Parts: sequence; structure tokens; C-alpha cells
Amino acid sequence: MEKMDLHILGCGSALPTTKHFPTSQVLNIRDKLFMIDCGEGAQLQFRKSRLKFSRLNHIFISHLHGDHCFGLLGLISTLNLLGRTAELHIHSPKGLEELLHPMLDFFNKQMTYRIAFHPFETREPALIYEDRSVTVTTIPLRHRLPTCGFLFAEKPSLNHILREMTDFYQVPVYELNKIKNGADFITPDGTVIPNNRLTRPADPPRKYAYCSDTLPLASVIEQIKGADLLFHEATFADEDAPRAKETYHTTASQAASLAHEAGVKRLLIGHFSARYDDESLLLEQARKVFPSTSLAKENLSISI
Amino acid sequence: MEKMDLHILGCGSALPTTKHFPTSQVLNIRDKLFMIDCGEGAQLQFRKSRLKFSRLNHIFISHLHGDHCFGLLGLISTLNLLGRTAELHIHSPKGLEELLHPMLDFFNKQMTYRIAFHPFETREPALIYEDRSVTVTTIPLRHRLPTCGFLFAEKPSLNHILREMTDFYQVPVYELNKIKNGADFITPDGTVIPNNRLTRPADPPRKYAYCSDTLPLASVIEQIKGADLLFHEATFADEDAPRAKETYHTTASQAASLAHEAGVKRLLIGHFSARYDDESLLLEQARKVFPSTSLAKENLSISI
Repeated sequence: MEKMDLHILGCGSALPTTKHFPTSQVLNIRDKLFMIDCGEGAQLQFRKSRLKFSRLNHIFISHLHGDHCFGLLGLISTLNLLGRTAELHIHSPKGLEELLHPMLDFFNKQMTYRIAFHPFETREPALIYEDRSVTVTTIPLRHRLPTCGFLFAEKPSLNHILREMTDFYQVPVYELNKIKNGADFITPDGTVIPNNRLTRPADPPRKYAYCSDTLPLASVIEQIKGADLLFHEATFADEDAPRAKETYHTTASQAASLAHEAGVKRLLIGHFSARYDDESLLLEQARKVFPSTSLAKENLSISI
Repeated sequence: MEKMDLHILGCGSALPTTKHFPTSQVLNIRDKLFMIDCGEGAQLQFRKSRLKFSRLNHIFISHLHGDHCFGLLGLISTLNLLGRTAELHIHSPKGLEELLHPMLDFFNKQMTYRIAFHPFETREPALIYEDRSVTVTTIPLRHRLPTCGFLFAEKPSLNHILREMTDFYQVPVYELNKIKNGADFITPDGTVIPNNRLTRPADPPRKYAYCSDTLPLASVIEQIKGADLLFHEATFADEDAPRAKETYHTTASQAASLAHEAGVKRLLIGHFSARYDDESLLLEQARKVFPSTSLAKENLSISI
């Protein structure tokens, strides 16, 4: 299977703790790096995770709270010091460019590369990125200001050619593409070789869904259905549900219920409030509802 | 002796490494905390050093390069989340307030406390802070934009009363202040008790000098003379002296020469370039010139 790895750079919430950096993740899809949120210290954690700045071209910011974007200034400045030339794309709810520009202009007198800001609307799901192998769609969330999660979906890939079989039947090279797409092969003497003798099925396309920060929302279920991995914020333990509601956040078992209802394969919870010394409490509460839950953790890397 | 401890929060330079945070330090003088520079992640390191936000009232920024001030946004926002009410004082070369304000206004809709910005001139040494026990004076430096270091100097303190002696001679309470100030005591029968029988001398006032970022400057020697501890940047090793000059930085042995000429007691070097995997090279080069040198390191704390 092609590479699809998630790296957690930070999974705390706004208040700093001795354990956590604020929110940032990197999704590595076939060695293209997609950063999701960029809290303070994201560039330091990026280096610690031994990721390559040159592979990073797209950053997705869920919402304009400081703990999700204060790392941008440092990261952008570092890329400039490194003499980057490739364009950097930043996708976020509108307003970010105007906020960053005065500081970027002052602190980076000469930019070696261009930043393309791509503001997105936050009310309806929208396709905001697409390449040959993956799409990124926004997941409208409900927080104290416009917020979206992101759904990273692999495109269906073609069947894999069984080289020894195509050699055996002497399939000409110009037929291979058709066969990858599902066609049978007809030999010169008219025998039909069915496609399933020549190929094995493509790996099922994978999905990673990221939902932070938000009230628990039934409306996301349809979009994240069957995801291979769901990251959902679980800022609070169940006993702090009133506080979660008041601040537009989710509790551990609320996140787990969504994972259950959406039938995702695995759930990763994070964005922990600084009030919990021991987050295993959150893990327990979530696992009661959805056993395949784990806790996010700095420098954790997960194969999807 | 009263407390005077230096905590290193970060001692790297602009490019992130897996070992270093960008520049930030906290000087604890009698439980008042003075922050010196505030690179990205300073608030995280502050928490890790188990320091108390409530004891921090003054921040000194040496110059407006990102690796010395990008941590301010996060720190200021955190203090706001914590409901701080005490005024926070930020001393820096001019321009900082105008740069920070648009972002601060957006990310902190309601501030629970006021920030007082105190811009300082960078050409001449100036007294920029004073309380009962300490003064802070700027040390003009020479970098690619206006930059100052800082000299933290304890005020001379009064002699210590030897309680058992003043009890023995039945010194009345109202005489004690005079005696602390050096007066002799005259008993009711006219005997003169010399001051040195009643007191032991005050601890000599201590000095901490901070110099970063800068070309090596002979002009600082007079100001930092005899300091108990000098922090001086040593971004580069000696073999990279041309690069140091070009970027307005100092090499390890240049920093050590300054320490030697100024007759300081100890030298701490930092602001290491990301190019050195092993900084013991810098330490060796400095120690050849000034043996009492040590390397700064994250979460190091030094009693002055």
C-alpha cells in the first residue's frame, strides 16, 4: 500500500502544559506532506519528527484561534531562511492573510517564495484540494467562530497488474492500461482471459477525517462515514460536559459516539484541556462507547 | 543571599533544530520574573521550567527578529485566558506595539489586562527599569537592525543585623535602621559599639549581562565589567568567522575575549547556529580564551 501516515506534532488545547504543544498534525500521503493546523511550536515539532520542509506545500487551518495558527509566522519565516522557492498554499477560513501580512512583511523583508492564501467558506462542504491521488474536502463544524474540519480521501486506484500472468499471456504493453482499468484480454487466437486472472484488485481508497474544534455534530456523520481514521477533538471528560457545551467543544464519549455512528475504523482523540493531568480518564470514557479509540500524543505517528 | 537565578528557555537561533528552542530566558530576582526575549515556544518552556506566570510582569525584547519575539502572541493570549489582571510591561526597540496590535486585537477579543509597551532607543545605554532592589539598563549592540542587550544590576543592599549582638547590647528597635546603614551604637552609658560588631557586611550586589544578537563590540566592555554572569551569543565557531561578520554575529572565541577583557566571573554562550550538531566545539574554542565558560541549554537553571 502507498504511504499514508499521520504525525501528531501537538495535541493540547490553548493553555500550555508541560506535556503538550498546541494543535498541529502532518499527514504524509505518498511523501507529499499536508499540515493540518499550525499551533505555536509546530515547526520545532516538525523538525523533531524528521519531516522534510521541502515536501510541505499545503497547510490547512481549521479556524482562526491562536492555538491553531500561531506557529505560522515562525514556520513561514524558517522556510524563507531556507531559501524556499516553491509556492506555499495556505487554506483557511477568510481573514488570515490580512492578519498575517503586516507581520510577515516586517519580519521577512525579502521573501524567496510566494504564499498563496486560499480562503474557504465554512458553511457547506467544499472540495478545496485535489491531485492525482487525493482530494481534500472541508467538514463544516460548529465552534465559537467559523471552523471546518478536513476529509482527506484517496482516489480509487487502478487494479494491480500481475506481471507473471501478463508475461505468460504475452499481453502487449499498449494493452496494460486497459487491463488496469478492468478490461479482459483477448489473445490472438480469440481466447478471452478474464481480468481477474491478470490483476489483483486495487487497495481500497483510504480516508482520514479531522474534526477540531467543535460541538459534537450529527451532520458530520454522513461525510466521515467509514473513514479509516477519525481524529476528533475531546477537549473535556464527560463530567465536564456543561463546560464543553459552553465553550463549543466535545467530550470523550461524545467523540466516541460519533465514531460509532459513522462506523469509522479507528478513533484518535486529542485537543486535551490542560485541566487533566491524566488523560487515560478520557480514553476510558471513549473506549466504553467505541473500543478502537486511542489518545493522540506528541510525536506519535500512525499508519492509516 | 537573595535569589537570583537564570532559566534558559531557549538558546537556538532562527532555524529550528531538534534540540533547541529559539531565544528566551527568565531571570528570577527575589521571585520577580524578568523575561528576556520571547522566541516561539517560550510559554511552553516557561511552564516546563515550573515558573509562575503571575510572577512575570516585565518582558525585555532585544530586537525585532522573529526568533526573539514570535512567542509573544501565544504568551500574551495565554495570560489572557488565565484571566490576568496585572499590567504586563514589554520593553523593546520601537515598532513592536504597532506590529502586534492587529493580531492581538483579533485573537483576544476581550483583554482581561493591559499591556504597556515601552519602546527604548538603542544608541545609548538607558535605564529602562528600576525597583527597590534592581535596575535594568540597555546595552547598545550592533546587529542588522536596532538591538540592545540588558544589564540587570542589584542595588547595594544594607548590612545584615547580627540579631544575637543587638539583643546582647539591648539595641532599641528604632536604632536598627541606622545600624543597617552603617552607624555605630552608643549604649546608655556612653560606650561606642562599632558597627562591625553588630552587623555583617551586605552581600556584594550582583550583575547579569545579556548580549544577543551582535557583532563582538568593545564598547560593551565598560558596561559589563565585573559582571557575575555574562550571557553572550556565540552563533558561530571560529572557522565560520567570515559568516559571523557578514550576518552581524559573534564567534565562540570572540565572546570569550569579551568576557576576558571585561573581567566577568562566568560566561554562558548560546544562540547556536543550527549548523553545529555538536556544540562542544564552540565550548572548547571559548574555554581556550576564557576557561569559566559554559554552554547554554534548554531548561538549564543557574544561580548567580
